Amino acid sequence: MTDPTTQAILDATRSSVLDFGVRRTTLTDIARRAGVSRMTVYRRYPDVDAVLRELMTREFGATLEATAAAAQDAGTDGRSRLSRQVVSGLRELRDHPLLRKVVDAEPELLLPYVLGHLGASQRHALTLLSAAVAAGQDDGSVRAGDPDLIARGLLLVAQSFLFSAGTADAIPTAVLDAELARYVDAALAPDR
Amino acid sequence: MTDPTTQAILDATRSSVLDFGVRRTTLTDIARRAGVSRMTVYRRYPDVDAVLRELMTREFGATLEATAAAAQDAGTDGRSRLSRQVVSGLRELRDHPLLRKVVDAEPELLLPYVLGHLGASQRHALTLLSAAVAAGQDDGSVRAGDPDLIARGLLLVAQSFLFSAGTADAIPTAVLDAELARYVDAALAPDR
Repeated sequence: MTDPTTQAILDATRSSVLDFGVRRTTLTDIARRAGVSRMTVYRRYPDVDAVLRELMTREFGATLEATAAAAQDAGTDGRSRLSRQVVSGLRELRDHPLLRKVVDAEPELLLPYVLGHLGASQRHALTLLSAAVAAGQDDGSVRAGDPDLIARGLLLVAQSFLFSAGTADAIPTAVLDAELARYVDAALAPDR
Repeated sequence: MTDPTTQAILDATRSSVLDFGVRRTTLTDIARRAGVSRMTVYRRYPDVDAVLRELMTREFGATLEATAAAAQDAGTDGRSRLSRQVVSGLRELRDHPLLRKVVDAEPELLLPYVLGHLGASQRHALTLLSAAVAAGQDDGSVRAGDPDLIARGLLLVAQSFLFSAGTADAIPTAVLDAELARYVDAALAPDR
């Protein structure tokens, strides 16, 4: 991932997607923008879909890791850190230029992921959420239960708030975010 | 809605959709199955899309009304009735033949609704949920707040569990349903 040519290829792919969208991004355009030959790209990736997948995994992964890390410095216990992590992750992804581009221009590409197929970024999110759930269970602020199952519930809920934002609907995002925070916190609290 | 010819047209549409899917259902086939002329259909509906929309609104509406009514006899307070209503509504819709057909064969038709455009059935669900929230607030079992906003959160959460079921995923539906029930109940409880 630190190989500068690979970085240049992924950066070129990003700018091509932002200009043209996912479907119209070509390997030729990627190579041109990266200043490398098509063969150089093909030595790293079998096809343009593989480049696109790695770009999304890199970009959304960075956002997920950054919000998980930032949440470590916030909140007084595992549950409040997790709640912060989910809501700020949602906000960052909602504003992410690549995800915005897909939602606005090619939403049909999201369908498999919404209908339950887990992509690499969703599996990444589940891993981070599951670890945060376990940490909250360790300090007693999160209810008992299989961390993977609890993480899956969090992902389902957060995704729904993510994809249904940005509509012509009357409810402001900040209000919906507060509602999501409430769901997360309440659903994670230990039994009374 | 009680006019027998309209009922026959909608029933014919239902069986055509179950056989052919939404996109391949034609007004000619609907008329043939209903035993009426195309003109009879056109006197009631401008086009096949209008028939399809009314069918979905009728079918999903009946499911929503039935689960809301059944929930009235269950639970000890407004919150437990509402929780029952959401989870059994989810189960009924997940097993609904028309929705199954769309999810399995033409999931792209769901996309606008998943991405936040509210269809007639979703607005119907919101109306029922909002009334149930208000009833729960009246008996003190549901937290204070705008019932429409709370209903919107419930819809987002329930939809996510609905559309992400039926995947090749390892989590059994009953376990996810229990998780949803937990979210609903916890997120509706009054502040401690």
